[in-house]
Amino acid sequence: MKPLILVTNDDGITSLGIRTLVEAMQTIGDVIVVAPNSPQSGMGHAITIGEPLRLYETHIFDNVVEYECSGTPADCVKLAKHYVLQDRKPDLVVSGINHGSNSSISVLYSGTMSAAIEGAIEGIPAIGFSLCDFREDADFSHAVEYIKTITLSALQNGIPKGVALNVNIPAKTELPIKGIKVCRQANAKWQEKFDYRVDPNGRGYLWMAGDFVNFDTEKDDTDVWALDNNYISVVPCQYDLTEYEALKQLSTWNL
Amino acid sequence: MKPLILVTNDDGITSLGIRTLVEAMQTIGDVIVVAPNSPQSGMGHAITIGEPLRLYETHIFDNVVEYECSGTPADCVKLAKHYVLQDRKPDLVVSGINHGSNSSISVLYSGTMSAAIEGAIEGIPAIGFSLCDFREDADFSHAVEYIKTITLSALQNGIPKGVALNVNIPAKTELPIKGIKVCRQANAKWQEKFDYRVDPNGRGYLWMAGDFVNFDTEKDDTDVWALDNNYISVVPCQYDLTEYEALKQLSTWNL
Repeated sequence: MKPLILVTNDDGITSLGIRTLVEAMQTIGDVIVVAPNSPQSGMGHAITIGEPLRLYETHIFDNVVEYECSGTPADCVKLAKHYVLQDRKPDLVVSGINHGSNSSISVLYSGTMSAAIEGAIEGIPAIGFSLCDFREDADFSHAVEYIKTITLSALQNGIPKGVALNVNIPAKTELPIKGIKVCRQANAKWQEKFDYRVDPNGRGYLWMAGDFVNFDTEKDDTDVWALDNNYISVVPCQYDLTEYEALKQLSTWNL
Repeated sequence: MKPLILVTNDDGITSLGIRTLVEAMQTIGDVIVVAPNSPQSGMGHAITIGEPLRLYETHIFDNVVEYECSGTPADCVKLAKHYVLQDRKPDLVVSGINHGSNSSISVLYSGTMSAAIEGAIEGIPAIGFSLCDFREDADFSHAVEYIKTITLSALQNGIPKGVALNVNIPAKTELPIKGIKVCRQANAKWQEKFDYRVDPNGRGYLWMAGDFVNFDTEKDDTDVWALDNNYISVVPCQYDLTEYEALKQLSTWNL
């Protein structure tokens, strides 16, 4: 029996990235799509509580059972698992292909990766795929074979329990991809700059912008290093946020 | 010089929980508030990209510099650090007091805790406080002294770098709080149930609901155990999601 693969994303069901991913997954298994009906970039692990959700069947892809949802990427995984599929558990959740990098600290803000992590929470092997090119018409062509290779390898070897893979792929350039590196999340952050403007009604508003600052430039075992050197990065991500090293230190506080 | 304490939350600037926290922090330091202008529960680590932000000064509290923001809890911390304060770094970020538990897996969905983690990313000691009572008029009175104790201890001892504390406080009952436990995040999840209804216009919609399922019932070192036994739980949380144990296993895939 072919594996059942749930596909979602955070750029919305009409994006080129999810179309590319759906077509890649159709060569591997049976595909079901539950994806947001609008862009959800930067939604992190948001879920919809206190408001109802809309879920409608769509007819965008060929030979795919597909739904668009008014909620977040994490909502889509919950809806797929507990409402749409109910008695059949997917063999894999894949999310993306995101238009833009989700390496390093961006994993926290990423709807793409939060959907994958939601899959891991549900006990389903899960992978988030992102291309380091945020353009709507980004060229995904060089990514497809690598995505298939990683997906088949994950289905064959099994992703460790409680883990979702964060896969980032360099933007297409004239240089070939050098290969795939298993990495850790680089220690980095966004240094925000807010651009103050005044609207036509005289009220102020702010645009968030910023620069990426990498504190991990000395090391070659990070996702940022891999991408900077034209490798695909694969980071195993978990959802237990406990910093175990800190438990001892806190117990000396004698609270 | 008194410490500068940035206060935010996810229930919105008008909630009782943030008022309680502001008043508690005013006994310890100088307080600045940057908090959402609307409820942001379940927003996780969402940030506002692709839309502008509104930020307006408010006059809700006594002797406090305070702003309400149209964005998420994480946006509030970014705005406070990089726009409102600019050259003065807060000595502490506190978030809450949340109306409702943020123990175990809820830490991922929590706007309260994502604001605290955003503080940690900025290199600021940070604590998220939550009360296990989601009611708007929850009784926070028994929590205040514990919150002051934990805050003063954090300022005195220093929170480990890259760590935000997730503090959950049992709801007020006739039983006294037994004390404070340093814990790990329990391995648990929400088992969603979706309630399908039809709106007056004949279109379907869904409410997300669900049950909390704890897979960690044998252990007494988790936040859920602590809360079930009327202790306050303190979990040190990090933002490096890398599952280091899985790196070796993945490297055997020969990608």
